[in-house]
Amino acid sequence: MNKAIFYHAGCPVCVEAEQQFVTALNPSNYQVEEVHLGNDKGRISEAEASGVKSVPALVIEGAPFHINFGASINDLK
Amino acid sequence: MNKAIFYHAGCPVCVEAEQQFVTALNPSNYQVEEVHLGNDKGRISEAEASGVKSVPALVIEGAPFHINFGASINDLK
Repeated sequence: MNKAIFYHAGCPVCVEAEQQFVTALNPSNYQVEEVHLGNDKGRISEAEASGVKSVPALVIEGAPFHINFGASINDLK
Repeated sequence: MNKAIFYHAGCPVCVEAEQQFVTALNPSNYQVEEVHLGNDKGRISEAEASGVKSVPALVIEGAPFHINFGASINDLK
């Protein structure tokens, strides 16, 4: 099982990405963890270390993929 | 089976998204068509009609998701 982390901030673009995009991932290959960076600011540095610059973003096995644009990670600090 | 279309232009960001992201989609739910808009300019208008503004992008059941940023669709015309 590979790990994927979905970083979001509860914004409308984030919710849309979660509902239609993250659920499209292969559940037999990926275990998806959801992290709300607005509520869980302690994990912002972890997201940044993976290369996340905006939310929503999905980190798959360490590689960041920014999906559309909801908010800059700097605005969540 | 739902339909997903991956629009790309062969750029490095596109290739990375295809290899790691598109292949993570659930194959039992999604049939993914790949369209190289640099080679298949006749489908640019179709992509724009779905809301695609840059590549790589994935259109899932009509909704556009831009994945990172490779090139503006205007630069492919």
